[in-house]
Amino acid sequence: MDIDVLTLFPEMIGPVVGASMLGRAAKNGILSVNVVNIRDFTQNKHRKTDDTPFGGGAGMVMSAQPVFDALRSVNAEQKRILYMSPRGRKLDRQLISDLSAEQKLVFLCGHYEGIDERIIDYWQPEEVSIGDYILTGGELAAMVVIDAVARLIPSVLGNAASHEEESVYSGLIEYPQYTKPRVYEGMEVPEVLLSGNHRQIHLWKFEKSCEITKERRPDLWQAFLKEERELDKEEKKILQKFRD
Amino acid sequence: MDIDVLTLFPEMIGPVVGASMLGRAAKNGILSVNVVNIRDFTQNKHRKTDDTPFGGGAGMVMSAQPVFDALRSVNAEQKRILYMSPRGRKLDRQLISDLSAEQKLVFLCGHYEGIDERIIDYWQPEEVSIGDYILTGGELAAMVVIDAVARLIPSVLGNAASHEEESVYSGLIEYPQYTKPRVYEGMEVPEVLLSGNHRQIHLWKFEKSCEITKERRPDLWQAFLKEERELDKEEKKILQKFRD
Repeated sequence: MDIDVLTLFPEMIGPVVGASMLGRAAKNGILSVNVVNIRDFTQNKHRKTDDTPFGGGAGMVMSAQPVFDALRSVNAEQKRILYMSPRGRKLDRQLISDLSAEQKLVFLCGHYEGIDERIIDYWQPEEVSIGDYILTGGELAAMVVIDAVARLIPSVLGNAASHEEESVYSGLIEYPQYTKPRVYEGMEVPEVLLSGNHRQIHLWKFEKSCEITKERRPDLWQAFLKEERELDKEEKKILQKFRD
Repeated sequence: MDIDVLTLFPEMIGPVVGASMLGRAAKNGILSVNVVNIRDFTQNKHRKTDDTPFGGGAGMVMSAQPVFDALRSVNAEQKRILYMSPRGRKLDRQLISDLSAEQKLVFLCGHYEGIDERIIDYWQPEEVSIGDYILTGGELAAMVVIDAVARLIPSVLGNAASHEEESVYSGLIEYPQYTKPRVYEGMEVPEVLLSGNHRQIHLWKFEKSCEITKERRPDLWQAFLKEERELDKEEKKILQKFRD
């Protein structure tokens, strides 16, 4: 996947996409992130990229010209463009899965009070929001989308089984995890996890997932109950326990 | 505000919190971000920080010991601890505003399939989620929270009026912004914004905000309608137009 990130703060992007699993994907040639500094495209001698808003108001607005030219420099006409904005469509698993099938993506990161609306009118980017909160710029939001999308590209996660297993309980919040040692500072691992009985372990995990989801995210729990899952007798019994 | 970030990927944090407005806040002594490498606290010779999960399953789980010791090294007993996790409470404006009043915060970033549950049992961190999607680690999520929280600390935003104005239309999505030039590649700025008539400009902005909110985020729009706002006659007329 080839990704262009257009930003006024290019120094924020490289260290993040170079680290951890994203970095490994880049080394393996699975993911390529091209960071473009919008400031390189200014045509005024002060390298200004913003100006005061027409009609008054606080803050600065990013000017059209440097952004237009930066978008043209990456042939954005032929690519899917995402503009990170609290006005946008909420990021969810559907959008992430959809984006993970793309070959090329362009991320436009805004700053200050926003960008000149003519950029949006002309380029018609998809506006995407990562949540109902305001950030100082679009860079972190773009990296969140890139990270979530890259995870779904086959072979980016070291262990391919890793995100498959998540889907067994998809719609539920994850059960607690434990690793060695068996006892740490007097605290023990739940005995069932040491039993070697895969059936019992599965039922314990399923029960914990149900319990945590119902308690913490009633919205996800109600959605899960509405789905017609194929559950066996014992799984159904666990579900019944939490249904009331 | 003093923030500790505990992570296995310290190289991701510095460049982000050093850039843009967060960087300025750090330079001005308003915000101090101390990045702690959890790996520095391992007691085994291979500097391992994770291991396979008890009970089987894909992926690796972060071990208790290095995290316990990293938390102790920053005196986390006396601080509010946030653990970034899709199981957590959804980040929203209320939580952001609440966090912005704190003097000290600790962010614990997980990786791989999660962290040993005994870390959570013992330290009782607040689990926080930035949205219903899965990331490869907690670092980006922690930086999103830090950015959103730092914005609210008085004097972090260059122009103090900047986030105040947002609250005039709070609950609504922002109206379109325009800056110079008046005509760019044949596209003109809406005439009302050039009129100098502040009343007309305000009503235009309010109308646009209503229109965009109703169209893109029916949930926010319904919530806005339910609030008892003090609106004048003309504002009410605009609201009425979109009510049906």
